[in-house]
Amino acid sequence: MDRFGYAQTSLSAEDLERSDEVYGALTQAVRELAGTQLTTEVDLDEAAAVTQEIRALTARLASRQRAGSFGAELTDTGVLRNHGNTVTGLRNPFAVANGEHPIVWNDTGASASLHLGPLCEGPPGHVHGGVLALVLDQLLGEAAASAATPGMTGTLSLRYRRPTPLGDVSMEAWLDRSVEYKTYIKGHLKDADGNVTVEAEGLFLLPRWAREQTGAWPSKPPKFE
Amino acid sequence: MDRFGYAQTSLSAEDLERSDEVYGALTQAVRELAGTQLTTEVDLDEAAAVTQEIRALTARLASRQRAGSFGAELTDTGVLRNHGNTVTGLRNPFAVANGEHPIVWNDTGASASLHLGPLCEGPPGHVHGGVLALVLDQLLGEAAASAATPGMTGTLSLRYRRPTPLGDVSMEAWLDRSVEYKTYIKGHLKDADGNVTVEAEGLFLLPRWAREQTGAWPSKPPKFE
Repeated sequence: MDRFGYAQTSLSAEDLERSDEVYGALTQAVRELAGTQLTTEVDLDEAAAVTQEIRALTARLASRQRAGSFGAELTDTGVLRNHGNTVTGLRNPFAVANGEHPIVWNDTGASASLHLGPLCEGPPGHVHGGVLALVLDQLLGEAAASAATPGMTGTLSLRYRRPTPLGDVSMEAWLDRSVEYKTYIKGHLKDADGNVTVEAEGLFLLPRWAREQTGAWPSKPPKFE
Repeated sequence: MDRFGYAQTSLSAEDLERSDEVYGALTQAVRELAGTQLTTEVDLDEAAAVTQEIRALTARLASRQRAGSFGAELTDTGVLRNHGNTVTGLRNPFAVANGEHPIVWNDTGASASLHLGPLCEGPPGHVHGGVLALVLDQLLGEAAASAATPGMTGTLSLRYRRPTPLGDVSMEAWLDRSVEYKTYIKGHLKDADGNVTVEAEGLFLLPRWAREQTGAWPSKPPKFE
């Protein structure tokens, strides 16, 4: 662990790539299982039988496991691998912004196109308002890091203009202003028809411990994978 | 489907109970698999083998499946079963507030004790700020329904006072004021040591279509299970 709570990995780039491919496929399989079990209507005996088999697979995976949470790894070349992240983590089956749906950085902020399916449901047929807050928090935080200074969320304000149907959405976030260690970001989310359904504003703060260690936080953070 | 987008179920109370038991166990098994695969370090051959078996189980569950999202069901006795909900749904493996960790209603609002594990990670060792927004949105919405009038989230504002370590958290929400179809709710979330880590405020709006249909929305909504 270094001072940012990042573990260093000594795996080669090739080994990391192979590992990501295999474990990424495992996570994707769990994601599909999670979606399918939500709406399955197989009979109760079959559901119970599948439950037993899932438990057996879990036991196999538990036979060798890192202690605690996934955390984040920094490679020899300075790439940050926070693969446990709830929104972007390669190894997190709940993450909706990875693989084919990454958050993309640009000079003024960040953007993403996501598919928010039945696992993201709140009101029938619509995305849970809290899921929209979840993905916008991640997007605005990455926009702060991309356009100005990385930081932890200080405040987040959301205005829900209309319900967001389940399905494809797009979102954008951009730098509003930046004052020393404070970065103000604005953004919004649009439904598949291009209607803005949620507006968001956030303040992101570079933590004091990072400010106090001169040079401790890079002027541009390590790029999230 | 009735006018609220709720499907009516004709299953008896006994059949629903049995179904919830079996399917709830299936969802819990998927939840445990999701957590274990996040931090497993089995070798790549074993990971790939388990991936294949997960896909086979998914295919079994997909053999009979309801179309679209889970939606919500209303029973003969007026109980709302929105088991797909991202935060509270019995059938949603991402839901952190169900089973042993329900959201509890009271006269002035609602409260809950949750366990936010590694799948909820943002900064290493800490809960993703967006996950905190997700669970607070659900809590504040239920507090509005419990203490005043149900509604959709209109605005949600969050102030992050300090990082929230992964693990046990508690949260409370209470009625601030209520004006016609607008309900203002305040709340906060505490870490395992009892420190308030996030403060939240939300405005919840009874939709116009519900207001325009006299008596269409019950004075107290159906209790969420």
